[in-house]
Amino acid sequence: MDNYVVGIDIGGTKLATVVADDSCKIVNKVRKPTLADKGPEYAIQLLFDMVYQTIEEASLKLETIRAIGVSCGGPLDTKTGVVYSPPNLPGWDAFPLKERLESEFKVPTMIENDANACALAEYRFGGGRGYNVVLYMTMSTGIGGGIVVNGQIFHGANDSAGEVGHQILLPDGPQCGCGKRGCLEALCSGPAIARRAKEAVQNESNSIILALADGKLDAVKSEHVLEAARQDDSLAQKLIDETAYYMGWGIANVVNMLNPDIVLLGTIAIAAGDLLLNPIRHTVSSFAMARPAEAVKIMPAQLGDSLGDLAAIALVV
Amino acid sequence: MDNYVVGIDIGGTKLATVVADDSCKIVNKVRKPTLADKGPEYAIQLLFDMVYQTIEEASLKLETIRAIGVSCGGPLDTKTGVVYSPPNLPGWDAFPLKERLESEFKVPTMIENDANACALAEYRFGGGRGYNVVLYMTMSTGIGGGIVVNGQIFHGANDSAGEVGHQILLPDGPQCGCGKRGCLEALCSGPAIARRAKEAVQNESNSIILALADGKLDAVKSEHVLEAARQDDSLAQKLIDETAYYMGWGIANVVNMLNPDIVLLGTIAIAAGDLLLNPIRHTVSSFAMARPAEAVKIMPAQLGDSLGDLAAIALVV
Repeated sequence: MDNYVVGIDIGGTKLATVVADDSCKIVNKVRKPTLADKGPEYAIQLLFDMVYQTIEEASLKLETIRAIGVSCGGPLDTKTGVVYSPPNLPGWDAFPLKERLESEFKVPTMIENDANACALAEYRFGGGRGYNVVLYMTMSTGIGGGIVVNGQIFHGANDSAGEVGHQILLPDGPQCGCGKRGCLEALCSGPAIARRAKEAVQNESNSIILALADGKLDAVKSEHVLEAARQDDSLAQKLIDETAYYMGWGIANVVNMLNPDIVLLGTIAIAAGDLLLNPIRHTVSSFAMARPAEAVKIMPAQLGDSLGDLAAIALVV
Repeated sequence: MDNYVVGIDIGGTKLATVVADDSCKIVNKVRKPTLADKGPEYAIQLLFDMVYQTIEEASLKLETIRAIGVSCGGPLDTKTGVVYSPPNLPGWDAFPLKERLESEFKVPTMIENDANACALAEYRFGGGRGYNVVLYMTMSTGIGGGIVVNGQIFHGANDSAGEVGHQILLPDGPQCGCGKRGCLEALCSGPAIARRAKEAVQNESNSIILALADGKLDAVKSEHVLEAARQDDSLAQKLIDETAYYMGWGIANVVNMLNPDIVLLGTIAIAAGDLLLNPIRHTVSSFAMARPAEAVKIMPAQLGDSLGDLAAIALVV
C-alpha cells in the first residue's frame, strides 16, 4: 500500500496539493492562495504544511507516498529541479524546489513546467490519448505550450521547448509581457483580446460588449467578447475572427514544423468552442502545408478544471 | 563481407548512387542527370542501371549490399515508401519507390525526405555530432528542414515535420512556390534573394551587383549579392541584412518552439559564412526567448558537397 502519489500545483495566485491512488483517482485536495509577494520561503513552508494536511486528511501516512509531482511556472530545470525566476513567482530566483521538497519528505520528486505537465495530463487522461504527437496550448492569461511525443514530454535542449505563445507574428505589433512585440500571446491571450475589445468598443456604439461589462470600459474581458459574439454582436464576431486569424496563423507555423496529430487548446478555446475553433481551423488549413494540415486535429482540451491537479499527478504515474 | 550499403540521392536535376563500406567510406559513385520531364519510369530504370554500375565498378556483388538508403524530395511516406508528387519530380504521383527498389534488388530499402536525411547526416558525420536536438535547414533553391532528436529523425504525424521554410512571416508578402504568400522560403531562398536584388539594383546605380552579373539583370543571383557584400557594396549589405532579419525571425520562432541545441544552415549560409550568420544570430537573440536563445548555436552545416551522398548513407548505417 505504498502506491499513492502527491501532486503539487504552484501557480501565481493559488497553490494546490492533491493525493491520488494507484488508479490516478484523487482522494484528497487542499488549496491555498500563493500570496506570491511573500516569496518562495513562505510558499515552500506553506506547501510542506499543505502536503502533510492532504495526506493526513486522507488517513494516509507519508510512507505510502511513492513520488511527488510538481507542476510549476517556468523557466525551470527538470534535471536539477531548480526554478529560474518565473514571471508569476517573484523572488523564485534559482530556487532549488526539488531539493527542498525531497529534503523535507524524503520522497522522489519531479518538477515540470506547468504547460508541459498539462500537455502530459491531456495525453494521459484527456484529449491527447492515443496520439503520438500532441501539442497542448494554454489560452488564458498567457499562451503557453507543451509537446508530448510518444508519451514523453519533449523538453528540448534546456527545458524550454513548446513556447508557442512567444512566436513573433508582428514584429511591430503590441507589446508582450516577455518584452518583445507582436508575439502570439500579445495578440490572442485573454488580456490581449480584452485590450483589443476596449480599443474597439470606443468607436462602436452598437456593440453590446460594453453593456455586458456593466458599462465599465476597464471591466471588459475576453468573456464579454465571447458572450457578445454568441448574441451575434458584429464587433465581437470581428474580434473573435481576428483572434482566430492570429491563432490559426501561429498554429499553422507550428503544424508545419512539428506535424502534430492533435493540437489541444485550453481555457478560452474551451469556453468559446467552435465559435473560435472553426475559424482557427479554417486559417490553419489555408496557412499550413497540405499534408501536415490534413493530419492535424484542432480540438479543445478535455480536462477542464481538473487539469491542474492531473498535471502534477501525470508526472509521476 | 556483406557490410556494404548503397545510397541513392534523387534530386530534380541529378541522380547519384554511391556504395559505402562499413566505416561509411564511399568507395564508388555514379552521377546522371534526372531528366525529370521523362517521369518516374525513366528515372527508376536509370537508377537500377546506376546501382548495378556503382556496385560492379567497385568490384562488389549485389550479395554484399545489406541495405539501400534513398534520399528523395518529399512529400513521401517513410513507412510505405511511397512518394507523393514532389514539386521537383513531376509525375511521381503516389510512386511506390521503396517497393520498386526492393523488388529489383531484394535488399531492405529505406526512403526518406532529403532534408531529413541531410539532417541525419549532419548529426552522424557533420556539425550535429554530439547534440541531442539538431535542426538542419537547407538554404538554396528552397528552404527545407529536418529535425534530429536523440539521433532519430523526428517525423511527426505523417512524415511532414520540419517544414521550417513554409512558416509564414508576411501573409501579404511575396508569392511562394508552395502557393501561399510570405513564407520564409519566399523571402530568403536563393531565388528570393535574387528577386529582391533584381528589384533593388534598378534603383541603385552605385551597386556593383549588376556588374558582377555581367550587366544582365536576368542573370543576377544570390552569389552576386554575397560577392558584392564582401566588397562592401552597401546595397548588397542591405540585402544580406534583410535576408538575415527574416531568417533570424523565422529561426527564433522555431527556437522558441523546439529549443534546439544547434541550428545548422546549408548552401547559401555556408558560402556566406559570418557575413550572413552574424546578423542572423543577432536577430535570433533579440527575437527568441532568453533561455532557448542562450542554448542554441547557429552554425553553417559542415558536410558541404558530400552531404547528398552521406544523407542517403546515413539512413542505413
